[in-house]
Amino acid sequence: MAANFASDNVSGASPGIVAALAAAATGGAMPYGADDWTARVEAKCAEIFETEVAVFPVATGTAANALALAALTPPHGAIYCHPQCHAYIDECGAPEFYSGGAKMVTVAGANGKIAAGDLAARLADARPHGVHNVRPAALTVSQATEAGTAYSADELAALAEVARGHGMGVHMDGARFANALVHQGLSPADATWRCGVDVLSFGATKNGALAAEAVIFFRSELAHEFGERRKRGGHLLSKMRFISAQLEAYLSGDLWLANARAANRAADRLAEGLAALAGARLIHPVEANEVFAALPGPVIDALEGDGFGFYRMGGGPDDGVVIRLVASFNTADADVEAFLAAARLHADAAG
Amino acid sequence: MAANFASDNVSGASPGIVAALAAAATGGAMPYGADDWTARVEAKCAEIFETEVAVFPVATGTAANALALAALTPPHGAIYCHPQCHAYIDECGAPEFYSGGAKMVTVAGANGKIAAGDLAARLADARPHGVHNVRPAALTVSQATEAGTAYSADELAALAEVARGHGMGVHMDGARFANALVHQGLSPADATWRCGVDVLSFGATKNGALAAEAVIFFRSELAHEFGERRKRGGHLLSKMRFISAQLEAYLSGDLWLANARAANRAADRLAEGLAALAGARLIHPVEANEVFAALPGPVIDALEGDGFGFYRMGGGPDDGVVIRLVASFNTADADVEAFLAAARLHADAAG
Amino acid sequence: MAANFASDNVSGASPGIVAALAAAATGGAMPYGADDWTARVEAKCAEIFETEVAVFPVATGTAANALALAALTPPHGAIYCHPQCHAYIDECGAPEFYSGGAKMVTVAGANGKIAAGDLAARLADARPHGVHNVRPAALTVSQATEAGTAYSADELAALAEVARGHGMGVHMDGARFANALVHQGLSPADATWRCGVDVLSFGATKNGALAAEAVIFFRSELAHEFGERRKRGGHLLSKMRFISAQLEAYLSGDLWLANARAANRAADRLAEGLAALAGARLIHPVEANEVFAALPGPVIDALEGDGFGFYRMGGGPDDGVVIRLVASFNTADADVEAFLAAARLHADAAG
Amino acid sequence: MAANFASDNVSGASPGIVAALAAAATGGAMPYGADDWTARVEAKCAEIFETEVAVFPVATGTAANALALAALTPPHGAIYCHPQCHAYIDECGAPEFYSGGAKMVTVAGANGKIAAGDLAARLADARPHGVHNVRPAALTVSQATEAGTAYSADELAALAEVARGHGMGVHMDGARFANALVHQGLSPADATWRCGVDVLSFGATKNGALAAEAVIFFRSELAHEFGERRKRGGHLLSKMRFISAQLEAYLSGDLWLANARAANRAADRLAEGLAALAGARLIHPVEANEVFAALPGPVIDALEGDGFGFYRMGGGPDDGVVIRLVASFNTADADVEAFLAAARLHADAAG
Repeated sequence: MAANFASDNVSGASPGIVAALAAAATGGAMPYGADDWTARVEAKCAEIFETEVAVFPVATGTAANALALAALTPPHGAIYCHPQCHAYIDECGAPEFYSGGAKMVTVAGANGKIAAGDLAARLADARPHGVHNVRPAALTVSQATEAGTAYSADELAALAEVARGHGMGVHMDGARFANALVHQGLSPADATWRCGVDVLSFGATKNGALAAEAVIFFRSELAHEFGERRKRGGHLLSKMRFISAQLEAYLSGDLWLANARAANRAADRLAEGLAALAGARLIHPVEANEVFAALPGPVIDALEGDGFGFYRMGGGPDDGVVIRLVASFNTADADVEAFLAAARLHADAAG
Repeated sequence: MAANFASDNVSGASPGIVAALAAAATGGAMPYGADDWTARVEAKCAEIFETEVAVFPVATGTAANALALAALTPPHGAIYCHPQCHAYIDECGAPEFYSGGAKMVTVAGANGKIAAGDLAARLADARPHGVHNVRPAALTVSQATEAGTAYSADELAALAEVARGHGMGVHMDGARFANALVHQGLSPADATWRCGVDVLSFGATKNGALAAEAVIFFRSELAHEFGERRKRGGHLLSKMRFISAQLEAYLSGDLWLANARAANRAADRLAEGLAALAGARLIHPVEANEVFAALPGPVIDALEGDGFGFYRMGGGPDDGVVIRLVASFNTADADVEAFLAAARLHADAAG
Repeated sequence: MAANFASDNVSGASPGIVAALAAAATGGAMPYGADDWTARVEAKCAEIFETEVAVFPVATGTAANALALAALTPPHGAIYCHPQCHAYIDECGAPEFYSGGAKMVTVAGANGKIAAGDLAARLADARPHGVHNVRPAALTVSQATEAGTAYSADELAALAEVARGHGMGVHMDGARFANALVHQGLSPADATWRCGVDVLSFGATKNGALAAEAVIFFRSELAHEFGERRKRGGHLLSKMRFISAQLEAYLSGDLWLANARAANRAADRLAEGLAALAGARLIHPVEANEVFAALPGPVIDALEGDGFGFYRMGGGPDDGVVIRLVASFNTADADVEAFLAAARLHADAAG
Repeated sequence: MAANFASDNVSGASPGIVAALAAAATGGAMPYGADDWTARVEAKCAEIFETEVAVFPVATGTAANALALAALTPPHGAIYCHPQCHAYIDECGAPEFYSGGAKMVTVAGANGKIAAGDLAARLADARPHGVHNVRPAALTVSQATEAGTAYSADELAALAEVARGHGMGVHMDGARFANALVHQGLSPADATWRCGVDVLSFGATKNGALAAEAVIFFRSELAHEFGERRKRGGHLLSKMRFISAQLEAYLSGDLWLANARAANRAADRLAEGLAALAGARLIHPVEANEVFAALPGPVIDALEGDGFGFYRMGGGPDDGVVIRLVASFNTADADVEAFLAAARLHADAAG
């Protein structure tokens, strides 16, 4: 079967994570997070992030994002975000649901990023009429972004400073946090709270887990009544250790970083190969595990005909079609090469 | 370590379910439920329930209940329930959250059950002032109940008839559905939609899975936009096959029924042993895998001192303390015998 | 036409209030409460209640109650109330809507009142499982109650002490606050915040206004973001002065107390007259402007045949039917006498 | 005092409306809309709009908009709107609150209007991922717009056709409906349901009433359970006749149209006068009772110094400041002339 680059959700799970899950299933434990796995995950996160953290494992990224944002904003608040971010367009209104109806306000920007200046401009006149206007309450940034790029620490710090100046909290959607982190070459602390991030949706599912995310608060006062929110949303697993065991294995021996490096390498190789094709060009810098490239329409058609999996993106240029390719922790070199070989063949035929 | 009867959530997972999960983790699949495991689970449910069904896997029982109830009631609706039911007291208001603020109205009854006559009486004058009053919209019953009892098919049919007569939908919280079913000796169809149940929270987590439940609709029109509700609640897993693989293994070869029989047998043995103790008595009939018994306070204290795990329930009689013991699919005979031996010892000492 | 005792909402408005409204309509003013009428009302309330207050005029009692309760409880909170109170049964779930899905928990009690001991008992084991249970957040009491009775200052203080001991806020639904106050013979301060009331729905509509209520906070920190809540609920009137002008006239020259005294006197006269009838008896003490009386069925039928307006209440005794009569600020003596004369006639005929 | 053009909410009320209100206050009536005034208003609306309508009076425009939009969209729906519309920016998230968290999606356009082509483009790829994306559910247009312009019947019909093609309902925010209508010179029917409008927020407050709006449904099936929504939101007035009496007077003898014509004439006169000033220009066509003009900064400063009331708008041109002037049904000719004279004086001084 031809390789599937449609999503990192397509891939299976890291053997080490599966083994940890199986091991956790053999014995008993107190339910609802009062277990040793969950305690160890919290301790491990504190070590990795070099600060006290409040850690809440959940099963999905949408839950992590929506619950985290609801902790930052009242129902009459506004959440500022990039118009292409997952929480805005691909979560069916989960942030609105969990927040009790907050408003998501978009700030566009190149390569999936919000620029601090644009955020500041949008906020400058955000509340001319007091109670008539929703209150700016939260900023959410995706790291890596939905365009496969990564904010630098300076970019994040500048955004956070603007947000803080308006009394807003800062959330990072880290569904692909590891991919951005290894690209940046920063410590987890330098990449988050030292830049002003208050709460992180720490993703593992896309990077080798089966279903495991964690909401990590760097300011514990924001976690006030988060346990109630999680339970009320149906996201407190009775056998919580089965998420925590995944997270523990994910963090052990730096598996999470190794997985992310492998995925990024595969994406880099795809990007290089595509960039070298006649009539093709990269749409965004490749700074994580996603590649956005414009290719001639006939090449895309032919690749689909071959059975390769990927998404066509809307709004492409006149002279081509934009596709998204996502590499995963276990993307095989052979699959990358097969895809590039096919693309070259089709590009030559079209040329 | 002394045995832990605190909850069926304490137990691990059936080896066959863990193996299926591990097998599913080795390869790729399309995300968000567009995978073969999920399709097979839906087909299997249709076979088991002998009718067309719409099946939505989720990770928790609270999610299943709240999402199902929200499909039955508008925000200005009322959900009728037993005052001791899980959805009312132990889900931190999840039904209210998912329904947009519906009102839960309690109808008390012996042994954790609502009697049809009591429901009818409560509904007789439910809406004297039209739009000033919330509209009766849903009935939820737990099967098995939180008192460890099981509704008979006749009891359910009578309740459903009352509900239907008031234009209400009927939901069954089947977190322990298998335990009730093997006690009843009915077919799944006879125990649900043929009695008037519209939607079932079909539980697997407490009975051998790691984290797997399914919302099963017997009237497909009620599932209208349920996919959106599930996504919006953060309960659509990207790697959905990891829930579906659990459910598939759970239903294969009647593992689910075998597990429930094992748990019920252990509960029966616990009940018999306790009932024979001096100063002890059963509080409810034991019709599933839970035992509620009143024992002399000193006996309870001593059992806790031994390290046995169980919950003390509030509101006990003057001459004793009510405890709850929950047996699981893998409760060991030796653990049951050890507990009963200790109880006998302490009862003799107290006598 | 025969007199209508169905509700105090049936009556028109006090001429002084209508005149004030008409006067306010002749000129312009800044919108949304930035007007002199609103400022004067707040100042007047501070004077009447002998303390700093935050005052928010709204058009309906349901809005006042729901907004006030939402200021006291998070979505995962519980609101304790009497099962017959207006907010629980006659507001179509408005408290649940405004609070984002809080749970209303009922504590029954004689004569429409909650007893402090019963509240304490209900709260004793309200949260055995932490985040699994909603958090007790607010107590709401009606003053006067829906049974036409009034809490004493001691009763209120005892309730508030229990609530405070559980970290709950105390709300008073004062749709008929004036009626209770003149019965008690207390100062507004002694009847509210000095008994532990945190926020009051201060009603005027039933007592001579056209449509005017005010949410009055005695603890200003609870009013945090209440302006946003009111606007978001659609309850910030653009021409706010038209509510405030009503309230100002209502409070001027003690019109509000005079109106309440008149209504209570009429109710007392109705009660005396009915109590003297053969086969009739009062169901609750008459401590405000409502009379609940059980009369022989044929007498009720005949009074309805005469065209008198009143409500039949459900759940009456075997030997009669319970009706509710509500007197108003402008109930005419002649109407009271005509009703009693008719009742005597029918009772004699039935006797 | 210098004239105040800050808002049409600044003005008082039409004498005929005040008189009707006072007359309604003299007698009794059944509460909650079961009165003759309300029945007559519904009949009158049916006559005016030449079709069956369901009419729900409320006290504020925000309530009308939010309740109407909630009747069109599920919580997981999207409401398409102009980014400058009142419901989006000036109602503190009321549509999100009443809809249970729907998403408002903006479609920009010149002069406060959405163009049908732009709406179509925005909708073309609105739901690429099914349940992951909110469902387009409603379009809301303001008539007159917040830029003081009016949609033509053709523009509305084109928008409604696009909306209908995507299964969406169409709402018109008619806070200034009368002002647009008299500008268009159309019949109410031709200006609404014959163009595809499903539900109208019919405003009276800004055009001579004290506080009176009505939600008018042209497709009665959409009004299903609207009564419950209104009550639950706290917008069902007990003494409803006091809104209905205003509406009745407003519609009698075409007072509403006469008031709107007077306001529009005053706005036209202001516009002509300002357009003739050196250094000034109109920002939008003046098609209702609002004027947006760019004037030199020193002129604005001086007019404010004179005590004239108006708002400065954000985002003005480099060579001036944009202000908004709103004329009202009772704007005096002398006030218009005084303002223009002062503006001419200051413009000459600045020139």
